[in-house]
Amino acid sequence: MAVGNGNKFDSWEFRRIYAADMHKHERAASPTRSVALVGARGYSGLELARILLRHPEANLKACFATDGAFRLADYLPHAGADQVPTCAVKDLESHLDGISAVFLATPAEASLELAPRILAKGVDVIDLSGAFRLQEGTPAERVARYQKWYGFEHPAPELLAQASFGIVPFAAPAPQAQPGRGRLISNPGCYASAVMMATIPLLRDAVIDPQSLVIDAKSGTSGAGRKAAENLLFTEVEGECLPYRVGRHQHLPEIIEWTRAHSGVSIDPMFTTHLLSVRRGIIAGIYCKLAPGKTPADAQAAYARAYEGYPLVRYSSLEGASALAQNQALSLKRVVGSARTHIHFQGAGDRLYVFSLIDNLVKGAAGQAVENFNRLQDLPVGLGLTELEGVL
Amino acid sequence: MAVGNGNKFDSWEFRRIYAADMHKHERAASPTRSVALVGARGYSGLELARILLRHPEANLKACFATDGAFRLADYLPHAGADQVPTCAVKDLESHLDGISAVFLATPAEASLELAPRILAKGVDVIDLSGAFRLQEGTPAERVARYQKWYGFEHPAPELLAQASFGIVPFAAPAPQAQPGRGRLISNPGCYASAVMMATIPLLRDAVIDPQSLVIDAKSGTSGAGRKAAENLLFTEVEGECLPYRVGRHQHLPEIIEWTRAHSGVSIDPMFTTHLLSVRRGIIAGIYCKLAPGKTPADAQAAYARAYEGYPLVRYSSLEGASALAQNQALSLKRVVGSARTHIHFQGAGDRLYVFSLIDNLVKGAAGQAVENFNRLQDLPVGLGLTELEGVL
Amino acid sequence: MAVGNGNKFDSWEFRRIYAADMHKHERAASPTRSVALVGARGYSGLELARILLRHPEANLKACFATDGAFRLADYLPHAGADQVPTCAVKDLESHLDGISAVFLATPAEASLELAPRILAKGVDVIDLSGAFRLQEGTPAERVARYQKWYGFEHPAPELLAQASFGIVPFAAPAPQAQPGRGRLISNPGCYASAVMMATIPLLRDAVIDPQSLVIDAKSGTSGAGRKAAENLLFTEVEGECLPYRVGRHQHLPEIIEWTRAHSGVSIDPMFTTHLLSVRRGIIAGIYCKLAPGKTPADAQAAYARAYEGYPLVRYSSLEGASALAQNQALSLKRVVGSARTHIHFQGAGDRLYVFSLIDNLVKGAAGQAVENFNRLQDLPVGLGLTELEGVL
Amino acid sequence: MAVGNGNKFDSWEFRRIYAADMHKHERAASPTRSVALVGARGYSGLELARILLRHPEANLKACFATDGAFRLADYLPHAGADQVPTCAVKDLESHLDGISAVFLATPAEASLELAPRILAKGVDVIDLSGAFRLQEGTPAERVARYQKWYGFEHPAPELLAQASFGIVPFAAPAPQAQPGRGRLISNPGCYASAVMMATIPLLRDAVIDPQSLVIDAKSGTSGAGRKAAENLLFTEVEGECLPYRVGRHQHLPEIIEWTRAHSGVSIDPMFTTHLLSVRRGIIAGIYCKLAPGKTPADAQAAYARAYEGYPLVRYSSLEGASALAQNQALSLKRVVGSARTHIHFQGAGDRLYVFSLIDNLVKGAAGQAVENFNRLQDLPVGLGLTELEGVL
Repeated sequence: MAVGNGNKFDSWEFRRIYAADMHKHERAASPTRSVALVGARGYSGLELARILLRHPEANLKACFATDGAFRLADYLPHAGADQVPTCAVKDLESHLDGISAVFLATPAEASLELAPRILAKGVDVIDLSGAFRLQEGTPAERVARYQKWYGFEHPAPELLAQASFGIVPFAAPAPQAQPGRGRLISNPGCYASAVMMATIPLLRDAVIDPQSLVIDAKSGTSGAGRKAAENLLFTEVEGECLPYRVGRHQHLPEIIEWTRAHSGVSIDPMFTTHLLSVRRGIIAGIYCKLAPGKTPADAQAAYARAYEGYPLVRYSSLEGASALAQNQALSLKRVVGSARTHIHFQGAGDRLYVFSLIDNLVKGAAGQAVENFNRLQDLPVGLGLTELEGVL
Repeated sequence: MAVGNGNKFDSWEFRRIYAADMHKHERAASPTRSVALVGARGYSGLELARILLRHPEANLKACFATDGAFRLADYLPHAGADQVPTCAVKDLESHLDGISAVFLATPAEASLELAPRILAKGVDVIDLSGAFRLQEGTPAERVARYQKWYGFEHPAPELLAQASFGIVPFAAPAPQAQPGRGRLISNPGCYASAVMMATIPLLRDAVIDPQSLVIDAKSGTSGAGRKAAENLLFTEVEGECLPYRVGRHQHLPEIIEWTRAHSGVSIDPMFTTHLLSVRRGIIAGIYCKLAPGKTPADAQAAYARAYEGYPLVRYSSLEGASALAQNQALSLKRVVGSARTHIHFQGAGDRLYVFSLIDNLVKGAAGQAVENFNRLQDLPVGLGLTELEGVL
Repeated sequence: MAVGNGNKFDSWEFRRIYAADMHKHERAASPTRSVALVGARGYSGLELARILLRHPEANLKACFATDGAFRLADYLPHAGADQVPTCAVKDLESHLDGISAVFLATPAEASLELAPRILAKGVDVIDLSGAFRLQEGTPAERVARYQKWYGFEHPAPELLAQASFGIVPFAAPAPQAQPGRGRLISNPGCYASAVMMATIPLLRDAVIDPQSLVIDAKSGTSGAGRKAAENLLFTEVEGECLPYRVGRHQHLPEIIEWTRAHSGVSIDPMFTTHLLSVRRGIIAGIYCKLAPGKTPADAQAAYARAYEGYPLVRYSSLEGASALAQNQALSLKRVVGSARTHIHFQGAGDRLYVFSLIDNLVKGAAGQAVENFNRLQDLPVGLGLTELEGVL
Repeated sequence: MAVGNGNKFDSWEFRRIYAADMHKHERAASPTRSVALVGARGYSGLELARILLRHPEANLKACFATDGAFRLADYLPHAGADQVPTCAVKDLESHLDGISAVFLATPAEASLELAPRILAKGVDVIDLSGAFRLQEGTPAERVARYQKWYGFEHPAPELLAQASFGIVPFAAPAPQAQPGRGRLISNPGCYASAVMMATIPLLRDAVIDPQSLVIDAKSGTSGAGRKAAENLLFTEVEGECLPYRVGRHQHLPEIIEWTRAHSGVSIDPMFTTHLLSVRRGIIAGIYCKLAPGKTPADAQAAYARAYEGYPLVRYSSLEGASALAQNQALSLKRVVGSARTHIHFQGAGDRLYVFSLIDNLVKGAAGQAVENFNRLQDLPVGLGLTELEGVL
């Protein structure tokens, strides 16, 4: 989807791949690509396991856990969970034979330690943490940004340059596999995914005024992970819609950097995140001015151009829709459990209201990680993902 | 609501009144001011009953209900609820002897029918509906605005001019009582109260750029009333944070009109309302640019100036507060049950993030109605209100 | 429902059927059995559509709705929902050509009107309402029981005798299809399913004292249907665990009758139902005394005997399980979205605690209806059901 | 705990005390009884602070906290919270001058360490933990019971004999104050309070068969305290109604012991506790057989006899009540925030369904602790409690 000159936005040709016959990809008795997973006990990790256990071309060979006692089936009622063995993280290297890719559903600190070990064994890594997302600038600048936004000293600023950021479907083509050297994919943050899916097409096609962006995002509590923290207790969260890290959320620099990379436009939005008394789902309210002369129809056209052939998105104008249809379009439950992004917008004079909804654990984490796996493996982007749905 | 000369905003002198000795107002065995209530079965109505049953100077003499079978104690476990008789609305006039004020916690259509009947008996009316809130323009323009925003033909555009809008503490002094003619107070909407409490001081003191306002408000479900509607069922609402009437909520013209009246500044904000899977409480996220040369300290000063002596507000900068303190400040549960408004703000470069929290049924409805009662009766503004708290 | 000779309980041979090669049943491009659905807008109806759209051998040809404007895709985001046409209920007969079975996800009154019309066209009916569940006694006694428990005059007591009650896996073999005459299946109630799945095996094997049964059941709100009733509003339900129809729930006689039919034992349990502030799922706490000489190991054996080969149940003793394992076993979320029943028990001296968990909309309604469809069609009992899972 | 002669159960004469003129007890500017609180940051502790800050005769002089940085006003928005100083627990003894009673809202282990220190200073202790509840038997038997039910070695079995168990209104008269020696009150557990308030009157008057008792209790999450545990996270609890410690909850021996003490009847109930996805409130479903010849009217009479003059209870038969009235009677929200117990029952043949509802943090903890304070101080039992209400 070249925009411009040099082939400015040289993203993955998911259209060509997706056009491939999905029917070739019925789940075989033993899918040929073996994968492993670190961090399966966390919420994103469990989602990964849920998806991978049914993926037609992936074979979840092992979970790695610090605690050898971990058993996937203790957490996941799904068929097949009891067949996945658990290996100790310390023995990681000895279990990578024949593994195509390892998913890291781990905190950034753990990912920073594990990724180099896995890559050195010639195995691809798809990292769900923030460890490799901020790549702009010199190594020193990168270290400074990590210090500011994540609060830790990044130990491998040079590795950042090698990581391929995977906001599918805008992501660059996957790096070519090199013998003996794994490829590193940095999977986007949940809020960042919700926001960029809605804004990149509009900015790329100059539909909106980049200076006017205000983003008010709300997330279910699973986005905070399975972390025994007082502020995440049911007794605390219930009844709340709590703003946190106001203007300081670590997904903000990621949004700015990758929006620029994929749209060529620099933004500096107001950005608030809230904790909902809801388990899953993100809804980002995105408020902006239309660029001079632009209308909501241009928004529709921008999404159509960006997402032609991409199976994991739905978008529409709310204009003229019935109250019922609006409620359904903007329902979190409708997107929770699916790998899609739902984008709905409405013009009002020279302003544009945009709402972007995802399941924070699927498009915002595990689902997009599997999109990235498909991308690495030259499989249809939606393989193992299009049929996912939650319960209403 | 003079937008006047020297003393620019000539609002009610609640400071003087509040300075009066609260100790004079211990609840007497039989408080001297008798009041009545229409619509007690609704959520705002029950809150009114809850507050009035303990108000030191109010004596809830009667509830009016279409259905004669209504018994307040069936809904309200509070002491005294079983002592309040229910009268039929059709016999309204015959029960107004000795009544100082009637609270209308009714839909707009009912208020439009009832208010004139009560006023004609020389009894004050405090109306909680939207029936008398939009007052700008000629009678024809008022009718057109009601048609646009409320969807009905306003039958009494001339009555609008007599209604005194009661966004306490900005409200004009109460009209002088006239023999044989009741006074009409229009109590603000819940979203409008949350928004105006936060924005009027900032606009009045030119702290923020009025063109930059974006408001993303979220409300508990009780704001929709006790209405058996499919979209308000638990099964529907749970798990959601649902935008509705995007850019079209009927509180928007009210916010614009009364912000102008009380600050002298015209605004045209982006405005979204959401239904939370929470029972009570509103949080409005207000996003704007600071006016040139202004800082968050000017916001602090503006609130200090506006709310000096006013007991029902708390405000502070989030800057430098601990995560715990920020969570507490921005907690809905902390304001639910109280009659207060909680306002907290944070600067970021030339932008200002403001959060305004209220209980939609108290400051957003019944509590402010009692503030207006106190105003009509020349009682301390916080009488019967300052001690209200919910459970955490 | 023969309570018979040597092989005492002559239930459907799901074991033989299930042994059939599931691989024959990959979803074909056009599955050969066409089905239709009345009441798709309700919660059970939507679940039926969700399941049938992926069932390997069912082809959802049409939805019937009173309101012609109904569109399944307005409610269901799942692939294929937009391909299902809606027909008017009044034209029902003209759309039944080639239809194998019609699912009635309708109130009892509607089922009573529709079932005879469909059966007369030679089409099978699977009715999810209570209309055909109480069958014991003479026609006059049946009418009296419906009057007592359902509050209506049953218009077709003779039809009750023809309905085959479908508590799978205890159900009798499906009646033989007769030319020109459809077969009628009465699908069990949600509470009844949860209770009977746990109690029939224990009673049949005389593990427990039938006189000692106390059942305290709790249900998510979706069990009450998409009904705009005041007591089902979010504002009302949130924060509650509300007992209702104490000792008078209409599922009680159904439990007594069909427990007797399938176990040969008469019971008269205490029975309470509660509305949870939860969307989906039923948990029934079942409290009883062990029969003299019996132990929890006998409970295990009874379940093993009853459910050998049945794919939609999990059961285990809680004894000795870790707190984590107990929490997982007794988790509602773990069963919600699946078609399974989870049964867990614990002995304490001469008492037995049993917990039975289902998704009220799946095993409690749509899932069991599809089990019954499989039974009518001589398909493996779990076809289209075993892979169902919700989100955690 | 005399189980005595003529006047069989020699409980505190709250009737006499309550008859005293409540009007004498308007909150004075400086109430004369000073109290202190350990564990104010916990949920029960905050409730205690909330109640004590308004109690007409108590003056909350200090909070003790291990962490000197604790500030009550950080957690409690109520007026006066910012006036309560925090002292370090290690300096406890030096701050007890002039203190009448210390409330321990601490874990059992902390209470065991603190109570002797405070008592030795001649100050009364009201302990909300389980540390002093199990008193039957020899010292060795007591130690064994604590080991079995609480899992720790009780260090002071002799102190157990001195503690006065305070299930008001059945509690024995407060011990006489002795110079230099504080009195120790053991405040009942939350589940135990809900259960015993409903069962003691029925057992005492032989209305029910003690052998038939089955208790299925459900609690809001605040009952588990402010404890950063994984199983209490919002993401885990939401959507659940989770049985835990089935038949093994540590409140069971307390219920058995004190029911015997106050009714003279030994029971051995089945007892299950559940965690609700609700913040506050306990509802206990109590299922039993009526004793031969007894009817629900005898239940009514038993409650009337037990609770004559006691202001903190409501009870009624559900028989003949409308669905609305039943919903209101059995509503948790209606009791949450209040200090009352709501008991409602219904007969069905020879069985009796009883529901007992309390706020786990008020009657189940802080409220009853204040009842015990009133008892120690010879104040009306409901002082500072009768007017408490939550929000609906």
